[in-house]
Amino acid sequence: MVIVKKYGGTSVETPEKILKIAEKIALSKDEGNDVVVVVSAMGKTTNYLIDLLHKVNDEPSPREYDMIVSTGEQISIALLASALSKLGKKAISLTGFQAGIDTDSTHSRAKLKRVYRGTLRSILDEGKIPVVAGFQGISPSGEITTLGRGGSDTTAVAIAYALDADVCEIFTDVDGVYAADPRYVESPKHIDRISYDEMIEMAAHGAKVLHLRAVELARRYKVPLVVKHAHENGTGTKIEGMNDMEEPVVRALTVDENIVKIVVEGVPDEPGIAAKIFEKLASRHLALDMIVQSMHKEKKNDVAFTVANDDFSEAIQAIKEVKDEVKAENVHFDEEIAKVSIVGVNILGSSEIIHAMFSSIADVGANIDMISSSNSRISCLVPKNKIKEVAKSIARSFNLATNGYVNDD
Amino acid sequence: MVIVKKYGGTSVETPEKILKIAEKIALSKDEGNDVVVVVSAMGKTTNYLIDLLHKVNDEPSPREYDMIVSTGEQISIALLASALSKLGKKAISLTGFQAGIDTDSTHSRAKLKRVYRGTLRSILDEGKIPVVAGFQGISPSGEITTLGRGGSDTTAVAIAYALDADVCEIFTDVDGVYAADPRYVESPKHIDRISYDEMIEMAAHGAKVLHLRAVELARRYKVPLVVKHAHENGTGTKIEGMNDMEEPVVRALTVDENIVKIVVEGVPDEPGIAAKIFEKLASRHLALDMIVQSMHKEKKNDVAFTVANDDFSEAIQAIKEVKDEVKAENVHFDEEIAKVSIVGVNILGSSEIIHAMFSSIADVGANIDMISSSNSRISCLVPKNKIKEVAKSIARSFNLATNGYVNDD
Repeated sequence: MVIVKKYGGTSVETPEKILKIAEKIALSKDEGNDVVVVVSAMGKTTNYLIDLLHKVNDEPSPREYDMIVSTGEQISIALLASALSKLGKKAISLTGFQAGIDTDSTHSRAKLKRVYRGTLRSILDEGKIPVVAGFQGISPSGEITTLGRGGSDTTAVAIAYALDADVCEIFTDVDGVYAADPRYVESPKHIDRISYDEMIEMAAHGAKVLHLRAVELARRYKVPLVVKHAHENGTGTKIEGMNDMEEPVVRALTVDENIVKIVVEGVPDEPGIAAKIFEKLASRHLALDMIVQSMHKEKKNDVAFTVANDDFSEAIQAIKEVKDEVKAENVHFDEEIAKVSIVGVNILGSSEIIHAMFSSIADVGANIDMISSSNSRISCLVPKNKIKEVAKSIARSFNLATNGYVNDD
Repeated sequence: MVIVKKYGGTSVETPEKILKIAEKIALSKDEGNDVVVVVSAMGKTTNYLIDLLHKVNDEPSPREYDMIVSTGEQISIALLASALSKLGKKAISLTGFQAGIDTDSTHSRAKLKRVYRGTLRSILDEGKIPVVAGFQGISPSGEITTLGRGGSDTTAVAIAYALDADVCEIFTDVDGVYAADPRYVESPKHIDRISYDEMIEMAAHGAKVLHLRAVELARRYKVPLVVKHAHENGTGTKIEGMNDMEEPVVRALTVDENIVKIVVEGVPDEPGIAAKIFEKLASRHLALDMIVQSMHKEKKNDVAFTVANDDFSEAIQAIKEVKDEVKAENVHFDEEIAKVSIVGVNILGSSEIIHAMFSSIADVGANIDMISSSNSRISCLVPKNKIKEVAKSIARSFNLATNGYVNDD
């Protein structure tokens, strides 16, 4: 088998952990597999490097940001390749450039263009284990680029596709995907199999275990993904195409507290006003989430939407630029909100599920501020101070915890 | 003017120091110069990375060593370029690969092959300041290499040559070259000008301020060098061709305590024995220093030589391999020795100088174990516990301290 294994920052945060991982990789190689490893920077290295950079320049250029941040993965690959050598395996570390990870020229959030198959394939053919720096690549003009959030997962999926790998294993600090985050729901059920579509909804709405971008790439190229614990043995979660299933099912709930609601108040009730606002936001590549336009008072509307905390200041800047043009009376924002979502198959096709969702929230006295949905998801915006109660109530309704009930500790 | 400025690890060990340096570089740019900067890794970064590597593998491959160690300079260049941007200068960081620093394939001690003029020249023509990672390059097959000891100085000199620079300034933590190391001789005289030949002798025999390899390269390509303090203003020391001078002069004394004497005892007094020993050592690229062959007893010789501490274990290994072949009776080594040298012009042409050297050593009751010399240097091996007294006595004889006398504190 051709296997791509990706290890995140917490899995390689100490030399001891790196040696442990090397043992597992060596074992997989001994079983006769062609193994490619992708690694992130050790633990807090990336944050350390960014802090260092900000000490000399609070607005560093994205190019220099990439130059310094990319050293984090370069350190990891040298260590892991050396740990594998220590165990008698032939291993060779490769930077993004050396592995042939081509990207566009957008520093700090570059998009993958292609991964050359040749280099990695010939290293595998020599019986060696290539250890590739995740998160980084090289632009057409030879500049070092980084891929932004979820970059290492994305690198792994892209390599798996380039090598036509049998599986892309994403190792992390939990044994796969669970039906809820244990910070909100105690003893959530383990998910053995999940479809790309469901995983994408989960990643897009608060689940941290896999990055949206990587799952989207995996879905597009049909790369079989498995999420597993890096240091423990477990079955993990298999993410794959599961188009045969139509029976409505609620697989998981997710919570996202890292969002802000922005309300543009009192814009005229005229065609094209909302378009102007959202065009402005889109031109800055800001991912909007929930959007609601509501009648405010006579001939005036309120336009509300949510954005990720990280994008908040840029979104506010964009709104400032467009505020006069759309004749808005006021702009305000609300951080005391959280989004709870249920994710599954054919959810909107089941009135029982829709009913159960809303009544679970009502049962704990939480108001629903905004609602959005897709065929495999319903999301509700609720007050942040109610989010734990809401999550537990929903988990109880859909039986998402292993003990069948949820503690109210 | 085209100026290459090289800053070592202590000069860039904190963000604050990097910002200070950036100010000086910006000033030089404002004066209308084309400025290229070469930097080393921050402070103790390189040692930190090597320690980390040894935690996963006590015998890492030189390739992985280069992979991890080269990140140190990459961090520095991103920081310095960002600091320059902060000051409103257009600066761009370049790894060894990006700057076109071509080396051979000898990992961890690669030799420079060439520096491409084109990339740096066009960056300068755009009014930008290229900030180049010292110490590293790229091999013909695209591997990251490091240059070994003195690598960053050597990078700077090579770039200065490639760009036909007016001067290559090496910034360090002292204001240039002094007539002695203050750890041995208090208030040594400052040297304003020194020839390449003298500087090479100093660097080869214990002076730390400049690396032998960089000075040799500078001499070969007639690159004008200046050594200066990184953070203070001072005249520095100019190193250049000074072939017009024949008057004997003692410019400086150097001390080297990082050497070991190895004695191969009781080899037959036959032609070719010494050759066999030294061929063996040469095949491992070990730089021998002082060599003495002396009659031991009838038809038996002792062959003694010194090597750098760092090369000791490899030298002993080489000697073990050749010991039986040359029928040696015994091998022993002595670490309790130090080498003191005087360096200057036409030294062997002056019997006064030679006399003063030996009598200064005799005056403090130190035995001379071995002697070596060139036209611009005399070196004596003396007991380590006498080295400070010896150094002071020699400094007194040749008037190498500013106060005219030397304290015996």
